[in-house]
Amino acid sequence: MWSTRLILASASPRRVELLRGVGLAFEVMPSGVDETGPRDDPPGFALSAAKLKGSAIAARFTGHHDAAILSADTIVVLDGEIYEKPSDAADAERMLSRLSGRTHEVLTAFCFVKPPGTVVHEDVVRTEVTFKKLTPREIRGYVKTGEPMDKAGAYAAQGIGMCLIESVNGSYSNVVGLPVCEVVAAIEKLQIARLFPGERETTP
Amino acid sequence: MWSTRLILASASPRRVELLRGVGLAFEVMPSGVDETGPRDDPPGFALSAAKLKGSAIAARFTGHHDAAILSADTIVVLDGEIYEKPSDAADAERMLSRLSGRTHEVLTAFCFVKPPGTVVHEDVVRTEVTFKKLTPREIRGYVKTGEPMDKAGAYAAQGIGMCLIESVNGSYSNVVGLPVCEVVAAIEKLQIARLFPGERETTP
Repeated sequence: MWSTRLILASASPRRVELLRGVGLAFEVMPSGVDETGPRDDPPGFALSAAKLKGSAIAARFTGHHDAAILSADTIVVLDGEIYEKPSDAADAERMLSRLSGRTHEVLTAFCFVKPPGTVVHEDVVRTEVTFKKLTPREIRGYVKTGEPMDKAGAYAAQGIGMCLIESVNGSYSNVVGLPVCEVVAAIEKLQIARLFPGERETTP
Repeated sequence: MWSTRLILASASPRRVELLRGVGLAFEVMPSGVDETGPRDDPPGFALSAAKLKGSAIAARFTGHHDAAILSADTIVVLDGEIYEKPSDAADAERMLSRLSGRTHEVLTAFCFVKPPGTVVHEDVVRTEVTFKKLTPREIRGYVKTGEPMDKAGAYAAQGIGMCLIESVNGSYSNVVGLPVCEVVAAIEKLQIARLFPGERETTP
């Protein structure tokens, strides 16, 4: 084993960067599939979106038993309401006004799908994020940078968005878009790849 | 006002990247000064190191009333013991064995010094970091990547180090080396610079 092709089914440059940062080899293949599912169940919504993305790519690999597809979906949840990517600048301002001065949850659902479409691992990781109190000036200024437009909840946990975040409780990479610690543990458990492949098991 | 030269007194590429990420203009001038101070007082230790670095650079700017020096020092603290950069690979393995499976504190002290040497702002920000339980194999493999060697506590909160961190409680950027939210708030309070400078104060 340990010779599986890992395919990341995501168009997010943040997910690519996070996974590349830990030194694993993988291919990138965005699914182009949009989010869907029951909005009254946030973890279920994120998980069904992740499975949909992963299954769309897995179907293209039918017959490739050496492939494993990793897909993920990140949402922001406040008062039971799901915040995805803002539709426009006004929507981004509305989201940031709601998040201002409060603690919300970031949920990233991720799964591994084996061709033609078997989900072999799934998980939803939650992180609490507390925003500082934002002034209308800061909200307008931040939206004008363009950074919020392709991010769930209308902010990035890296970049300028760091100035909005007072504290994080849980996995930080989960807020960026992929819970690295949990994803790598699953990759090792599923025998897809291993961190430090050259390192022997024996203790000194 | 709002026309102060901001000088970052640090050789850390992580600090440069964090500050650059929020879009502020600044110059970089490493002090070359080493850490010192009473080791039985971790916040005092970090703060005195930060002040020493900032003062060393401020002295070079005597007469430049438009300059403000930002300096910082990051340490890891577990059971009252201060962990700085490891001295060698064996020291890094020792530190990581101690941090494995436990929660430690990361303290970043930062200050602003005006030439020739007046500290106009100082703060120490604390973040809790919980490590997953590491195997001897993982510790050896991680040390061999070289990533731990120039980092306080022998790990990076970004890169491969993300696989070691189970959770963070507080400011994430503080763990990387500069508490961005607090630093930017101080930069604005001291009227050194402002986020979104083109944005008017008036509400819609």
